Amino acid sequence: MNLEEKVVAHDAIYDGAIINVERQTVELPNGKKAYREIVHHSGAVAVMAITDENKMILVRQWRSPIGRSTLEIPAGKLDQRDDADPKHAAIRELNEEIRLHPNHLERLAGFYSSVGFSDEYMTLYLATDLQPVQSELPRDQGENLTIKAYSVDELRTMVDNGEIEDAKTVMAVWRFEMMALKK
Amino acid sequence: MNLEEKVVAHDAIYDGAIINVERQTVELPNGKKAYREIVHHSGAVAVMAITDENKMILVRQWRSPIGRSTLEIPAGKLDQRDDADPKHAAIRELNEEIRLHPNHLERLAGFYSSVGFSDEYMTLYLATDLQPVQSELPRDQGENLTIKAYSVDELRTMVDNGEIEDAKTVMAVWRFEMMALKK
Repeated sequence: MNLEEKVVAHDAIYDGAIINVERQTVELPNGKKAYREIVHHSGAVAVMAITDENKMILVRQWRSPIGRSTLEIPAGKLDQRDDADPKHAAIRELNEEIRLHPNHLERLAGFYSSVGFSDEYMTLYLATDLQPVQSELPRDQGENLTIKAYSVDELRTMVDNGEIEDAKTVMAVWRFEMMALKK
Repeated sequence: MNLEEKVVAHDAIYDGAIINVERQTVELPNGKKAYREIVHHSGAVAVMAITDENKMILVRQWRSPIGRSTLEIPAGKLDQRDDADPKHAAIRELNEEIRLHPNHLERLAGFYSSVGFSDEYMTLYLATDLQPVQSELPRDQGENLTIKAYSVDELRTMVDNGEIEDAKTVMAVWRFEMMALKK
């Protein structure tokens, strides 16, 4: 089946610091016109950081879109320096957010966070064999957070009771449960 | 630690069909000002539909934000009718997209897809005991898709090789692997 939509017009709506928004006019396979609203984003990394005690590290931070704080695995946006390899961004975010360096870092998966309206692509890593960083990178302005490590049983409960309600973190918890089952 | 950011101004940027965009001026806990770009979205549901042959159903559809098609679990936006219970949206999407009705439908988790810039909240369901629908609901304009079911081994390979690159679908595959390990 031909699924392709041809873009016949782009209208720029907003050129922001983190996102750009555009409205496309597309021609559907049946020849009809439709509109598509698209949020462009530079991409991001997220990291399942597992301690030697087999706990996963979460950070609590304020999230403006929902007006409250959330518990999430460490994550951050890519910047120009990361073009070659998002691994660098993963190492930088672990330093900035939890002040640890991973002696082992492994790519688990890459995915679009919300492909219905956005091109944000996230790469998820597993980080183990963690040690304190030798030099601390500065945190972003307003990057206030608290840090704690949780067992797989605690994490499962926190997904079930809604204490964890961030997509990449739910995903990481299920992967962590899978790792525990395979042992 | 006080993490709260106080909103001191809202600037509406775009009022669209699927998304609204605003720019907030916030006061950080240290008293400094910062800007937050926020994409408002009505929320969505996604469904892990598992056949009696223990395969997971994926749909291939065009995704404008990345200009190509993706393989995803059935999903769709909430509308006003779903206010009471997103379960109704899950059942409707299964009808619209794969023409099946679940005799068993179970909530697995709820999460924000990309909480750094958006308030889109998604509820993920497990649907089993599937049967052909008695009356087919009309599809959305431009909702062209192809449908196929995959085994857990096929799905694992497709995440690893990047054929599956949609967040909720990676999440569903890992949950499906967990279910297989627990059996």
